[in-house]
Amino acid sequence: MPEGHSVSDLESFLEQGTELLDSVLDAVVPRAGEGAGELAEAMRHIVFSGGKRLRPNLALLGSLDVGGTREDALGAAAGVELIHAYSLLHDDLPCMDDGQLRRGKPCAHVVFGEATALLAGDALLTLAFEALADRTPQGRPVGAMVVALGRAAGWVGMVGGQMADLAAEGRSPDVERVTAIHAGKTAALISVSLELGALAGGGAPDQVSRLAAGGRELGLAFQIVDDLLDLECTTEELGKQAGADAERGKMTWPAAVGFEQARADAARLMAEAEAHFDSGACRALLVGLCRRLLPRRS
Amino acid sequence: MPEGHSVSDLESFLEQGTELLDSVLDAVVPRAGEGAGELAEAMRHIVFSGGKRLRPNLALLGSLDVGGTREDALGAAAGVELIHAYSLLHDDLPCMDDGQLRRGKPCAHVVFGEATALLAGDALLTLAFEALADRTPQGRPVGAMVVALGRAAGWVGMVGGQMADLAAEGRSPDVERVTAIHAGKTAALISVSLELGALAGGGAPDQVSRLAAGGRELGLAFQIVDDLLDLECTTEELGKQAGADAERGKMTWPAAVGFEQARADAARLMAEAEAHFDSGACRALLVGLCRRLLPRRS
Repeated sequence: MPEGHSVSDLESFLEQGTELLDSVLDAVVPRAGEGAGELAEAMRHIVFSGGKRLRPNLALLGSLDVGGTREDALGAAAGVELIHAYSLLHDDLPCMDDGQLRRGKPCAHVVFGEATALLAGDALLTLAFEALADRTPQGRPVGAMVVALGRAAGWVGMVGGQMADLAAEGRSPDVERVTAIHAGKTAALISVSLELGALAGGGAPDQVSRLAAGGRELGLAFQIVDDLLDLECTTEELGKQAGADAERGKMTWPAAVGFEQARADAARLMAEAEAHFDSGACRALLVGLCRRLLPRRS
Repeated sequence: MPEGHSVSDLESFLEQGTELLDSVLDAVVPRAGEGAGELAEAMRHIVFSGGKRLRPNLALLGSLDVGGTREDALGAAAGVELIHAYSLLHDDLPCMDDGQLRRGKPCAHVVFGEATALLAGDALLTLAFEALADRTPQGRPVGAMVVALGRAAGWVGMVGGQMADLAAEGRSPDVERVTAIHAGKTAALISVSLELGALAGGGAPDQVSRLAAGGRELGLAFQIVDDLLDLECTTEELGKQAGADAERGKMTWPAAVGFEQARADAARLMAEAEAHFDSGACRALLVGLCRRLLPRRS
């Protein structure tokens, strides 16, 4: 790892970032005692289910990278993690992927019923914007940040990608289409995590766009790795059903280009992301994170 | 109608406000040609289905009432209408009310399938915050406005009310519980429509809170009237299935207090709302709107 940062620096950064983020999420997500009953339980079921907190840690890194603090980016970090959490709830619903297991636990709709899982997702999506706006420091471009999160999460970005993903089920794989799906479904939110962090940290426009660009490549690589893991791992290792993509006829990257090429593409995209991350204050941590996300099996 | 405003003034205000709002919605909601395919079609299916545009017109009135312009409040108006539209899509899903007919047309999930209706709702909810932030004038407290919309639409407000509504199905009616349901499910969004309009128009804190308070009473009265109409009207008159509340064992106001008392409560609440609206620049239009929303049958 470059510039004197060790793997343990990255590990301790992620640990501390996750702790900070979890305390914010604990403050903003309701508890059952606050009159929200099962709705609160279903929201907490997914938010506190052992997620890796990749997106919020990227937001914290985005702020530090441009000279801001981690605290500056806590609203942004909570916002992107709540968007990610809602998307998992809705993705797992019977009318979508009909998931049973998520992070090794039964899905929210299995535990609480479909209507409650649907409403809990709606509440988390709404709370994402509230938390972003409420906890972004005065003097930051909060309006532009809400717009950026909206684009990344909505019909242009994540929801658009999920729709394209559904529409492509069972079609013959095609690298152009799978790029568009992955860019919307996964890369848009990962990219905006860095972008919002940089905006929250007071970054200049060129710093913000450099991090957003690196985030797009990192996000694409991350989804390719996820596709590969779905093929390589067992259900126990994944915490969700393995081989689910193939079973549903999902258009994955390895299905479009083959297994070996997919591994090569992920490595190439990650190297492109690293190049974008190579000039900020957190380059070592960001580059370390990119390498950590590449598959470790050979 | 007081102070020289006639019924035709209100009618023409609502007509012009709706026209302005529709042109903003047409600009922000995607078209099928823009790469969003069926997602865009499902979004437009509900957004342009002949809604009364009550909430966005309240936002415009809120701005005018405190000395702002209608244009100031167009972001707020689009935001509250998009929240309303998404809530109808998700409410009608099979796991919720399983609606078939909405505004005289088949529901989105009947036309496009459940997954597309779910995703279109998610996209509209996301777009609501984007449009609010993107189209609110510089210099207005956009962060506070996003927070207010989040609270009104989320677990504290609308989604919380929907959850309480589901949880109360089949229970014996109780006026305290039905007040909490209606306050969350309906009044929160109606109240925040006026509040956001007032904030967008540059209103002072006392003007903003006066309009928000009037909005809560107006919203409660509005939902009681809606409960009454469900009992009194035919499916053709409503554009959705009549008698659906009773069939599902919904906890309505007339079920809790009786039909005559419900009519009296609606009139009382509307009078309380009128009292809150009695000092701003738009008092005549706001009071006229309150009277127009009371049931016209005797």
